[in-house]
Amino acid sequence: MIQKLIERIKETKAPICVGLDPMLDYIPEHIQKRGFEEFGETPEGAAQAIWLYNKEIVDAVADLIPAVKPQIAMYEQFGIPGLEAYESTVDYCRDKGLIVIGDVKRGDIGSTSAAYATGHLGRAKIGTKTCPGFNSDFITVNPYLGTDGVKPFVDQCNEFDKGIFVLVKTSNPSSGEFQDRLIDGRPLYELVADKVKEWGELSMDGEYSNVGAVVGATYPEMSKVLRKLMPKTFFLVPGYGAQGGTAEDLQYCFNEDGLGAIVNSSRGIIAAWKKDVYKKDFAPEEFAKASRQATIDMIRDINRVL
Amino acid sequence: MIQKLIERIKETKAPICVGLDPMLDYIPEHIQKRGFEEFGETPEGAAQAIWLYNKEIVDAVADLIPAVKPQIAMYEQFGIPGLEAYESTVDYCRDKGLIVIGDVKRGDIGSTSAAYATGHLGRAKIGTKTCPGFNSDFITVNPYLGTDGVKPFVDQCNEFDKGIFVLVKTSNPSSGEFQDRLIDGRPLYELVADKVKEWGELSMDGEYSNVGAVVGATYPEMSKVLRKLMPKTFFLVPGYGAQGGTAEDLQYCFNEDGLGAIVNSSRGIIAAWKKDVYKKDFAPEEFAKASRQATIDMIRDINRVL
Repeated sequence: MIQKLIERIKETKAPICVGLDPMLDYIPEHIQKRGFEEFGETPEGAAQAIWLYNKEIVDAVADLIPAVKPQIAMYEQFGIPGLEAYESTVDYCRDKGLIVIGDVKRGDIGSTSAAYATGHLGRAKIGTKTCPGFNSDFITVNPYLGTDGVKPFVDQCNEFDKGIFVLVKTSNPSSGEFQDRLIDGRPLYELVADKVKEWGELSMDGEYSNVGAVVGATYPEMSKVLRKLMPKTFFLVPGYGAQGGTAEDLQYCFNEDGLGAIVNSSRGIIAAWKKDVYKKDFAPEEFAKASRQATIDMIRDINRVL
Repeated sequence: MIQKLIERIKETKAPICVGLDPMLDYIPEHIQKRGFEEFGETPEGAAQAIWLYNKEIVDAVADLIPAVKPQIAMYEQFGIPGLEAYESTVDYCRDKGLIVIGDVKRGDIGSTSAAYATGHLGRAKIGTKTCPGFNSDFITVNPYLGTDGVKPFVDQCNEFDKGIFVLVKTSNPSSGEFQDRLIDGRPLYELVADKVKEWGELSMDGEYSNVGAVVGATYPEMSKVLRKLMPKTFFLVPGYGAQGGTAEDLQYCFNEDGLGAIVNSSRGIIAAWKKDVYKKDFAPEEFAKASRQATIDMIRDINRVL
């Protein structure tokens, strides 16, 4: 699967993905209204607004980018109707040829991780049949439980040609609380990186592995080290833009082949219409056009440092 | 919320919860058949079988126990229909007066953790209204992202009178890979325990906190230390029975007041009908009666060491 992502990155010349993390207050009022008019101020109404909003943004940016990263929590907060909007979004994006990275950060003991892997990457065995669940191409995985919590995801990557990104160093302010603590002189996130490399050997696909790593853009010194530690590991890089990471910060996430990382922006793209820099050119009704312009600007910004 | 759990534990004299983790091969054939006849060998059929199975087990054990712990992965693997069965199970158990611990192991950066908290503990703001999502009483939380990833859950515990159990030392074989590594001479799980204690101070409810800890029954020496480190923290203890933990192993999870822990058993109860010891007395059609007997036996076994 990682080779499919690499091909799409080469085609688009855009090592970026758009984070489809629809908070209700990112959604312009006329779209919220359409959802609420149809289904009331209910989870169904919220889910409908999210779906209409996502669809318009995806239509506006699909030709520019290789991948999207829907954050499932933003859907899960509205219960079943929200998760139906998540499913519709995943399916719609895949139909448009986009690679879908489900940002689900799952992880548990072995048999339970296997069930999560089935639900998001694989197919469930039901009687004599098999059926996919949410059917994304990649998902994010939490490593706290160790190898037997991660291995079931790797197995399903191999079985169904899928990929994962394992949390190594996250972009949030308190990520260092545990991740940076020194163990035999090395921070925990480097030990996780060692394991990601080891798990990655079990699912190679060309020069890169289907087992990638989440490495926040907000800690450039650390990404420099991690890049060297895991040369065959693709990085999913959150934290660009709204969280404070700049193109200069994240250049170290890339290898010398110009590959090895995909940078995510969520709010900066999907809520571009609310930002001063786009507000003057785009009315709220043109939010998707603002997202397109923000995507073009982001691609230019990142290619500047590659 | 923790006081509600404590009251129910005192009433039932049973510091245990039943893990509703329905793998399809735990479900007797006649129940699977009913699901598949109604909806075919589809996710809907699987979800219906799960729901019928859960309902019969819950009806058989509800008067014996304070709480249940549905593992969401086992539902999520069947996509939306599976999650509908999860929702029905949560609602049904709460209607029966059971406390529901949603075993979801969520955790992310701040705004995303807030969305998960909303989806499982709180209420989503939709226009002028608010609506609950999956509406459990407690959920499990992964600490790898640090304080800003956990704090939004604690905030919603306070706002909606709910609770969480944070993963400290998990029951699986490779839990030690990261959790046991020494930092300044102490294992990582003790550092997590320090933080759980600190977060717990923000949500006290009587002598215990609404912020609990997951501490595996399979590592008794460690639970002894953790019990002392976190005297006001309630433990959710997985790993009893099928995973190898005995009543002797988990006695150290309790405080001298006989409180402080709730022990989970999943397979050992819900798939009791498949075990040799119950097979001779209960036919597959009597699977719920076998679950009841296994629950009674487990309560007796645990009270033996208290």
